Amino acid sequence: MRVRNLALAAVVLGGFAMPATSDEGMWLLDAPPRDLLKKKYDFDLTDPWLQKAMLSSVRLNSGGSGGFVSPDGLLVTNHHVAADATQKLSKPGLDLYNDGFYAATRDEELKCPDLEINVLQNITDVTKEVNAAVKPEMKPGEAFAARRAVMGKIEQDSLKATGLRSDVVTLYNGGAYHLYRYKKFTDVRLVFSPEKAIASFGGDVDNFEFPRMNLDVAFFRAYENDKPVHTPNYFKWSETGPQENDLVFVTGHPGTTQRLETLARLKHRRDHTLPYTLYRLRTLEAALSQYGMQSPEKARQAAGDQHSVANARKAFSGQLQGLLDPKIIEQKATAEAALGDAAAKLTPDSPVYKNALAQIADVQLKLREFEKPVGLLETGHAFYSPLFGIARHIVRMGDELPKPSAERLREYRDSNLESLKFGLFSPAPIYPELERAKLTASLTFLAENLGGDSEVVKLVLAGKNPAARADELVNGTKLIDPAERKRLVEGGKKAVDASTDPLIVLAKSIDAEARKLRTRYETEVEEPERQAYAALSDLRFKAFGSSVAPDATFTLRLAFGTVKGYEVGGEALPFHTTLGDAFKKSADLGGKEPFDLPKRWLDGKSKLDLTTPFNFVSTADTIGGNSGSPVLNRAGELVGVNFDRNRHGLVRNFVYTDVQARHIAVHSKAVLEALRKLYPADPLVKELTGK
Amino acid sequence: MRVRNLALAAVVLGGFAMPATSDEGMWLLDAPPRDLLKKKYDFDLTDPWLQKAMLSSVRLNSGGSGGFVSPDGLLVTNHHVAADATQKLSKPGLDLYNDGFYAATRDEELKCPDLEINVLQNITDVTKEVNAAVKPEMKPGEAFAARRAVMGKIEQDSLKATGLRSDVVTLYNGGAYHLYRYKKFTDVRLVFSPEKAIASFGGDVDNFEFPRMNLDVAFFRAYENDKPVHTPNYFKWSETGPQENDLVFVTGHPGTTQRLETLARLKHRRDHTLPYTLYRLRTLEAALSQYGMQSPEKARQAAGDQHSVANARKAFSGQLQGLLDPKIIEQKATAEAALGDAAAKLTPDSPVYKNALAQIADVQLKLREFEKPVGLLETGHAFYSPLFGIARHIVRMGDELPKPSAERLREYRDSNLESLKFGLFSPAPIYPELERAKLTASLTFLAENLGGDSEVVKLVLAGKNPAARADELVNGTKLIDPAERKRLVEGGKKAVDASTDPLIVLAKSIDAEARKLRTRYETEVEEPERQAYAALSDLRFKAFGSSVAPDATFTLRLAFGTVKGYEVGGEALPFHTTLGDAFKKSADLGGKEPFDLPKRWLDGKSKLDLTTPFNFVSTADTIGGNSGSPVLNRAGELVGVNFDRNRHGLVRNFVYTDVQARHIAVHSKAVLEALRKLYPADPLVKELTGK
Repeated sequence: MRVRNLALAAVVLGGFAMPATSDEGMWLLDAPPRDLLKKKYDFDLTDPWLQKAMLSSVRLNSGGSGGFVSPDGLLVTNHHVAADATQKLSKPGLDLYNDGFYAATRDEELKCPDLEINVLQNITDVTKEVNAAVKPEMKPGEAFAARRAVMGKIEQDSLKATGLRSDVVTLYNGGAYHLYRYKKFTDVRLVFSPEKAIASFGGDVDNFEFPRMNLDVAFFRAYENDKPVHTPNYFKWSETGPQENDLVFVTGHPGTTQRLETLARLKHRRDHTLPYTLYRLRTLEAALSQYGMQSPEKARQAAGDQHSVANARKAFSGQLQGLLDPKIIEQKATAEAALGDAAAKLTPDSPVYKNALAQIADVQLKLREFEKPVGLLETGHAFYSPLFGIARHIVRMGDELPKPSAERLREYRDSNLESLKFGLFSPAPIYPELERAKLTASLTFLAENLGGDSEVVKLVLAGKNPAARADELVNGTKLIDPAERKRLVEGGKKAVDASTDPLIVLAKSIDAEARKLRTRYETEVEEPERQAYAALSDLRFKAFGSSVAPDATFTLRLAFGTVKGYEVGGEALPFHTTLGDAFKKSADLGGKEPFDLPKRWLDGKSKLDLTTPFNFVSTADTIGGNSGSPVLNRAGELVGVNFDRNRHGLVRNFVYTDVQARHIAVHSKAVLEALRKLYPADPLVKELTGK
Repeated sequence: MRVRNLALAAVVLGGFAMPATSDEGMWLLDAPPRDLLKKKYDFDLTDPWLQKAMLSSVRLNSGGSGGFVSPDGLLVTNHHVAADATQKLSKPGLDLYNDGFYAATRDEELKCPDLEINVLQNITDVTKEVNAAVKPEMKPGEAFAARRAVMGKIEQDSLKATGLRSDVVTLYNGGAYHLYRYKKFTDVRLVFSPEKAIASFGGDVDNFEFPRMNLDVAFFRAYENDKPVHTPNYFKWSETGPQENDLVFVTGHPGTTQRLETLARLKHRRDHTLPYTLYRLRTLEAALSQYGMQSPEKARQAAGDQHSVANARKAFSGQLQGLLDPKIIEQKATAEAALGDAAAKLTPDSPVYKNALAQIADVQLKLREFEKPVGLLETGHAFYSPLFGIARHIVRMGDELPKPSAERLREYRDSNLESLKFGLFSPAPIYPELERAKLTASLTFLAENLGGDSEVVKLVLAGKNPAARADELVNGTKLIDPAERKRLVEGGKKAVDASTDPLIVLAKSIDAEARKLRTRYETEVEEPERQAYAALSDLRFKAFGSSVAPDATFTLRLAFGTVKGYEVGGEALPFHTTLGDAFKKSADLGGKEPFDLPKRWLDGKSKLDLTTPFNFVSTADTIGGNSGSPVLNRAGELVGVNFDRNRHGLVRNFVYTDVQARHIAVHSKAVLEALRKLYPADPLVKELTGK
């Protein structure tokens, strides 16, 4: 029975009919696949191993993962995860993102203006408590409010009791609720970041490709009370790195996957959400690239945004190609039918399975009607500018903070308020000309989507065309100054109502409409989907037990896999590249951007052992958000830093396969070789290796 | 009465309430504004002046204008108009588009694979003949067919009688029909093209901007019977160029304007056509730029397409900003109302005006339903690849050529067949990897627009995702070889039906659907609009006489204006830049692309008189298609080569204004200075100046 179920589970998961012993899964740390690891790899996943992995792993609020690598709060992540911080630490004439940085002493370490890191301390299952608050007779709006209230209460109680950041996380799209408690650090300082040319050698061209030769790492240090954090929980840096066929683990914070979504939902993504998203991203990418072309200084200003948008564009393009592949759609259909068969056997007369599918399909039809408006006005796609985000928070804080915490919009609950203000009052630089370009593009995008005669478009544009309106908003606002933001937040609703700042006035003027759309989304989409998925999830548990990991939620997960190469078009790709490969590829392509190498690398080539492994791949199951994840060996030592997956892994949102799909990591040895030979970074090497 | 009508005409034209003596107008050469020129500029526009301007002006099939500048068939146009030819003459290791070219002797001149030029010989009004063929009782489909047939007959008769390329041109959106007869040349050879870095200095950033410093010129020579064409009709090259406040003329082939369109049509453009177009162009631009980043050779392959797409994207973005400007919409509404007032006075009880407006508004509602499918499948947006265009022509020629000429789809009529085959059998290089990237992007765009479950998408993708389908199509086709194209065309329908070439099979499989959409467009959009616009046009003639020029139609027009600068934000911009300005701007921006200068220019800087005027502006009325247009002084001498308009001129599709809007031209003196001092081009200088 168990075997049969496991085999069925693999089908239901929708992968390429992976065997039950596949390396699929972004596993919860409180429900790890111990049996599978024992059976397939003869590995005993012990509690102390897990505990140490949890306490040594780090989530960055800029959207990535990392891990402590010394007892003195040193942590490693990717150069591209650090980009948000290195951009904010840069200014005209000082370009840390492109040119790199190294603090030889602790005094030289640079405090990041708004980087927060979270370290998971423990997990509690609160599913029953959450579900108990929602009564069957409630209408969707009431159910949503009741659930939000109970989640808010659990979080607030936990915050009061422990002082820890406390988040209730929705798992299995509504099948389970867990409380995650984090220790958070807001004094995080930059220690080392290499030149962008070697960190993302090959740029957008080689993003999501393999072979790769990227030194995509950066080091920060966490501080408390102005002193480096001392911690016994850190990963030992391996001086050898992994060998072929080694078992490795990845601990990190995968962002989102859609493996448990129904076919109707996936088709909605394919035909509506993804085309809209790509239309939007290409619009922004064009605007940013055109801005950056105007001068080297503008290129510097736009570089971080440009990388983020290009990365998203490539990831979503891959998703779309995946969902347009009839083979993948067929697999998902087969998997859905298999769950139906299982349901029919478990509860032959129950309409639960059919009803849940029908409910989710029905939601998609409704969503079509207002998905664009909700994205444009509530998510903020019409206002691609941190300044608008600031204005909206200020306006909404005026309305929300007087309410009891559990009744507020979720982002304003007490347990999140400190983190929110940390970002809101950040002194990170904002460049008016860049904001103008971004706002022009996104206001135009708004009009393109809703039409020039739409009431909301007229309201937003206020009698001007998008370019002139963007000028007016950016020229008139004082929100670039954090002191003004603080003044308005502290002044509350009264100060907000008295403000004539054009961005505040704009955010206020559209707030009723934006909130209306949000409520509609919550009651017509979020709540009915959550209830339907909870029912499907329940069926899945009954049929297959906990052999299926939940979809990713930007919370800590454990993945595992084998270090191994793969074949493309009959050609075998080895499991790792070497430092020498970077020089070769750069020379082959004329040394032109994005295949240029930093001067330090060209000058120092002869010092390097060019056979040193540079990047390697494994079958472990990762997705966006895993960037910067520690890659560990059996001993829990850090053998690599995950930074990407290959093009075959782009469909991982929907299906896992280990035939060609791989995640890609920087080899631990390459980091040491570069730090030793090219950078004057001996203290850093010593801290990592103890030598 | 006349004065009142003229003032009203200005309003109806929808400009910024331009006085009746404004420089607006892309005038027909058989209806030039003699009175206006006499009154405002005291200039007598004589028949010989006009005749010489007509016979010396040139249209290029790559989409631009030019003019003969020597008695030996030498002609000047823009570097960016020549781009199509210089790209096709290039190959791996030889990059004429970027690196430039000069043939010091006639033997070295390079024959372009498929460049055709047309020189207008005469114009005949055939309005009555065309209208007589369409009876009031005909249904739209019948009317369309009858009109197509009579136009085809007129063209064929003219071809037979004169041997000249003969096109019936629709003017005033259906208000008049003129027969244009051209002498055509298909042996055109490249003489000179500068480096791209100076030809489009500032690249996309400075496109549609002023001040500019571009040597955007190229020279070709027309041959007949393997010998340079001898012609008395050429423009003398001015060694002094224009002075401030000079009257200048522009002869050229403006592509399309929409100044006479109704408000309903313009709003349809704003809310439907332009967003779709920008979505499409940004998609293609992203794909091309990503392809070009892969290697210097791929960058070379994609450069021409990249320039065209970026140029279109910027032009359409400007149009959208214009139509999203409430002031412009208001002007158009006022103008429409003014025509209504005039109509009410002329024919108080006639419903013609109201019916025409209602008919056009009604058409827009219908068009919404199928504008995307018709664009994707019939216009070919789903298949952005010359290979598909070739396949479609071959398939359709098999069906169309057996029919009488007047009954064929218009592009296959006898009078167009030679030009069509000239392009179809061109040996110009096609790069499979580039085609694959372009097809992947456009097939994906198809699916994004119509959805993965659409029958036509399934038919086109044939069980693959877009990337895999593009691979299959490009890997399998033999159409890269012109001999294979010829074989299929000569073999007719039988050969086409027997072909298993995947692109032929694809073109065949969707032809029924594409033709259906085309017929629907012709009968539900083109014909009803044509009839309604003819009615409006008739009213306009009655109310305002011929004081209004027709919208642009890529046929020869005459514009005129004053050489003068303008103010931006209180700052006065002089009417010309200098060679020195290019060096200054390049240095200010770190010499980085797109502000890099060719080595020849950097090395030769000291040889140049840096005060030489480089680019200048005038108020003359131009639009896309005018690229390469000769700019003439009163004596009919060439004082400049038009290459662009400024950002204020981007709304010229809809309204003319001379407050800030200007066209931009290369100063005739700058060309001579550069050719003399920097290029070893003395023979060319001698041919231009006689010295």
